[in-house]
Amino acid sequence: MKKVAVILSGCGYLDGAEIRESVLALLALDIEGIEYSIFAPDMQQHHVVNHITGEPDPSASRNVLQEAGRIARGEISPITELKAEQFDGLVIPGGFGVAKNLSTFAFKGAEGEVDPVVVAVLTDFKTSHKPIGAICISPALLALAFGDLQPTLTIGSHAGTAAEIEKTGAVHQVCETNDCVIDTTNRLVTTPAYMDDHANLKDIFQGITKLVKGMVALSK
Amino acid sequence: MKKVAVILSGCGYLDGAEIRESVLALLALDIEGIEYSIFAPDMQQHHVVNHITGEPDPSASRNVLQEAGRIARGEISPITELKAEQFDGLVIPGGFGVAKNLSTFAFKGAEGEVDPVVVAVLTDFKTSHKPIGAICISPALLALAFGDLQPTLTIGSHAGTAAEIEKTGAVHQVCETNDCVIDTTNRLVTTPAYMDDHANLKDIFQGITKLVKGMVALSK
Repeated sequence: MKKVAVILSGCGYLDGAEIRESVLALLALDIEGIEYSIFAPDMQQHHVVNHITGEPDPSASRNVLQEAGRIARGEISPITELKAEQFDGLVIPGGFGVAKNLSTFAFKGAEGEVDPVVVAVLTDFKTSHKPIGAICISPALLALAFGDLQPTLTIGSHAGTAAEIEKTGAVHQVCETNDCVIDTTNRLVTTPAYMDDHANLKDIFQGITKLVKGMVALSK
Repeated sequence: MKKVAVILSGCGYLDGAEIRESVLALLALDIEGIEYSIFAPDMQQHHVVNHITGEPDPSASRNVLQEAGRIARGEISPITELKAEQFDGLVIPGGFGVAKNLSTFAFKGAEGEVDPVVVAVLTDFKTSHKPIGAICISPALLALAFGDLQPTLTIGSHAGTAAEIEKTGAVHQVCETNDCVIDTTNRLVTTPAYMDDHANLKDIFQGITKLVKGMVALSK
């Protein structure tokens, strides 16, 4: 696995991409000697949340691509330019941006929809038999997109979310923060990360590192 | 070293804290078994920069504490509450926020001033003989605050910035991204990180890990 695409959904776990998961995914890729390119939708965020109070700020409006550009240090492209043929795999960090900007999972659960451009990208990688690694809540995208294939996924041990994911046809497997679940048939790797709010960064990094190594193994 | 304070200056390298350096500092601390509490000034940012175009957005305004709260996942306090007596050391990640929000170094170089509350915190740690670790451009704060003590610092190999720092009395030492400079006399540890825009995350993480280990050694 030489080069991987990374999809970010903003910058901040309450309205965008989970920042720590995003950075640790990039670090794990760099340590494995895998190059990456970062993508995000050029769209307005569902909303902007004050990360001190946890309350939405109705007066504020931010663009997903611009905010994700903070994590990407400006080296980012619109997701419409992402083609699976240019990459060996896809990584999607978590954060509520996945469930609010890339899909409507936060509001509609198993009845939610994935943004059509994101669905097209996921399908592009899936039909190209290239591995997809999904962190934290991102496996919900895989469940919504590929539930009928009955993929095995984890969102850790969050029973309510697991039940919602299983309504799509996906099979949920409980997993520790420092581990990952590998669906060899569907070439999907998932790790819980901050699905446990009290998880340690060390364990999250271990889980994400295993996810990247799992993707490398699947791509062989 | 059991517990360290971390000061963030926003969220995004062009107008706040460098996100990746901030997360990797937290990861390095967690791996060493060191707890951390995060602080930031409750003030408006100097400005807001679009991280795609690199241009300031004059219509936008953001609060440093709220934005840093994105990296801190809401677990953050105003810097006015930071007392050295409650911690064994202090870590300051980089980003232009250090030079624009915590000080005026970005605009005035060696003639710049550090925010009075930040100066008080730095002095509190210094007079308590507790180590301070400064990443990327943050050593500029140490130069402005303690230049008369002729501390040995690094901002990598950026000649212009090094020259500016030396005007304060500080001694600049060239350093690779994956290493750090330790001033034993003044209990200061510095590492270049993204002072080299093209640095690899792996090397930055190695440098920051050495910085944390250097602080541990100084605290004994």
